Amino acid sequence: MSVDFDELGSIFARRDGTNNELPPVLIGSHLDTQINGGRFDGIAGVLAGLELVRALNDLGYVTKRPIIVVDWTNEEGARFSPPMVASGCFVGQYERDWVYDLIADDGPRFGDELERIGYKGDKPCKAGAIDAYFELHIEQGPILDAEGREVGVVTGAYPSHGMRVRFEGETAHTGPTPMDLRHNALIAGARFLTAVDDIGWEFAINDGKATGSRLAAWPNKPGILSDTAQCVADVRHPDPVTARVMAEKMRRAAKASAAMAGCVAMIEDEWSWGGDIFDEELINIVRDEALRQGYNWRDIRSQAGHDAYHMAMHCPTAMIFTPCKGGITHNNNESCEPGNFLASLNMLLHAVVKRADR
Amino acid sequence: MSVDFDELGSIFARRDGTNNELPPVLIGSHLDTQINGGRFDGIAGVLAGLELVRALNDLGYVTKRPIIVVDWTNEEGARFSPPMVASGCFVGQYERDWVYDLIADDGPRFGDELERIGYKGDKPCKAGAIDAYFELHIEQGPILDAEGREVGVVTGAYPSHGMRVRFEGETAHTGPTPMDLRHNALIAGARFLTAVDDIGWEFAINDGKATGSRLAAWPNKPGILSDTAQCVADVRHPDPVTARVMAEKMRRAAKASAAMAGCVAMIEDEWSWGGDIFDEELINIVRDEALRQGYNWRDIRSQAGHDAYHMAMHCPTAMIFTPCKGGITHNNNESCEPGNFLASLNMLLHAVVKRADR
Repeated sequence: MSVDFDELGSIFARRDGTNNELPPVLIGSHLDTQINGGRFDGIAGVLAGLELVRALNDLGYVTKRPIIVVDWTNEEGARFSPPMVASGCFVGQYERDWVYDLIADDGPRFGDELERIGYKGDKPCKAGAIDAYFELHIEQGPILDAEGREVGVVTGAYPSHGMRVRFEGETAHTGPTPMDLRHNALIAGARFLTAVDDIGWEFAINDGKATGSRLAAWPNKPGILSDTAQCVADVRHPDPVTARVMAEKMRRAAKASAAMAGCVAMIEDEWSWGGDIFDEELINIVRDEALRQGYNWRDIRSQAGHDAYHMAMHCPTAMIFTPCKGGITHNNNESCEPGNFLASLNMLLHAVVKRADR
Repeated sequence: MSVDFDELGSIFARRDGTNNELPPVLIGSHLDTQINGGRFDGIAGVLAGLELVRALNDLGYVTKRPIIVVDWTNEEGARFSPPMVASGCFVGQYERDWVYDLIADDGPRFGDELERIGYKGDKPCKAGAIDAYFELHIEQGPILDAEGREVGVVTGAYPSHGMRVRFEGETAHTGPTPMDLRHNALIAGARFLTAVDDIGWEFAINDGKATGSRLAAWPNKPGILSDTAQCVADVRHPDPVTARVMAEKMRRAAKASAAMAGCVAMIEDEWSWGGDIFDEELINIVRDEALRQGYNWRDIRSQAGHDAYHMAMHCPTAMIFTPCKGGITHNNNESCEPGNFLASLNMLLHAVVKRADR
């Protein structure tokens, strides 16, 4: 394969086809992890692409279209938020220089760090014509494992709405300042995340989720009320209308929490994803392989964010989920056996070849 | 004056008396500030001591007992928690080496930083015989300013109970993890600080206060549920029984908040202070000066923590409060006019001389 990387450090390994003028088939995922992440989230999808190419090499089989295996930079957003920036820039959702200017919690700039590790390439981060994009990923949830399924055919994604909110208050002494004169931004943030969690439980019986994932207050020290707090929260629900209602409840909770703490809330950023974003034809190819090869499969919807969501804006896209033990993920205890990948790898191989031979 | 500093960097400026065998009178406070602090909290008390000595020098007056002006290291605890460690060690509440081993949020060790700035002295941090300790401090609350008082005679301190709690959960994905399988320590912390704030409002009509001042979660990143969260909170109330009830509500809230988030709570540290800790005779000397000099004064109780609380365990102690604009403190906008200190300085001068001439 010929290997290169683009301006944002995404790595592309290309296997030529018999007609290299045709738009290629891409197989991708990511090698980066969460700060406490496991060994399969993302990594399995990149290795799956390489394993598929090895299998074709072993068979001496050359497809009509080229096949490109991609590792996307910064899918997780663990150090540089937001996540999935490289695939987003690739399909035109983000500007390259905006990504370069992202600042890590610990100070450095995205572009500088990319240069430091030697992965700031010359190749433009810009998608050309692509025939299809496939992504294999661990489910990151408990459903396939609990039902004893070998594989999941991903039909779409839970509609999700997230936001980053900034609360502004005023520092003061924790002791003599009367309750009615306080503007403690930390309390605004705490009330907001509590309200978000309540929203999650309110909609949990229909598989809704609401998450507070970050609260960074300043000064956040004993003895002083906090001046500012930044929170990140999101809601997800299988039904798009319900997800929208949850999102609005979350927005109102931000304002109400700020008011209760004598602070103001500013929504700094909002994002949405999910829905029926994947390609019907590609989903059918994947599902037909599950049927043809006789696997214990089910249709499933993705609930996490994936680079495939960005790719789906640009070209026909499909995902395949593999079971992971207990659904444990974003955790060092993430665990899969080699057998977990048998069905998904065979389905991916045949689906990719079918598409690449068009 | 002869100036030296002790093992913890507290600075002692001594003015000899006519009988230097007698236990001295101390006047002290601190020069350190909060991360967003003002120019008067602590600093006013140290400068008051120096101003008093200057006044005696101008008058050519020598007291019988020596007078020592003290600047206590790390009163605020802004970088190294807990606060008031130097005065605490001075009176035997903390071990010197335990203080040396305190670690800052940004990494360094207390003892190493003290050495780095050249303030790790040889003089033992240990109180000898002391006749009396006086501390002048801005009120750090709105009472004196709102009532137009020139000075406050501090009669005691609000009983206060504080705690540091650690919540332990488990990292997981923010998306697919069902609500009932979550153990998000950040949510445990947010629920706890919300409950603490509710306790504050419940007791606010009788001047109770409850504060959440710190929530440090890990990893505290978008996309992942947090494994741990550390919270600092306290309650204060003029009535000791009510303060005790508030403290127990806070303890139970820690456990309940943890339970609601599927986490466990561990109380890592608890502290209490306040009550009728100051010396009746010294308070009367101070109040008599207010009456004699005809100031607009009132009795007042301290609600913040002060080095004087530690000193009161060791020797007769009294505090004098000065008004500060709007009670604003632990804030860059902390503001006092020179006139704010006129009454308190004159009272301090006469009270100290009266005591030092015994």
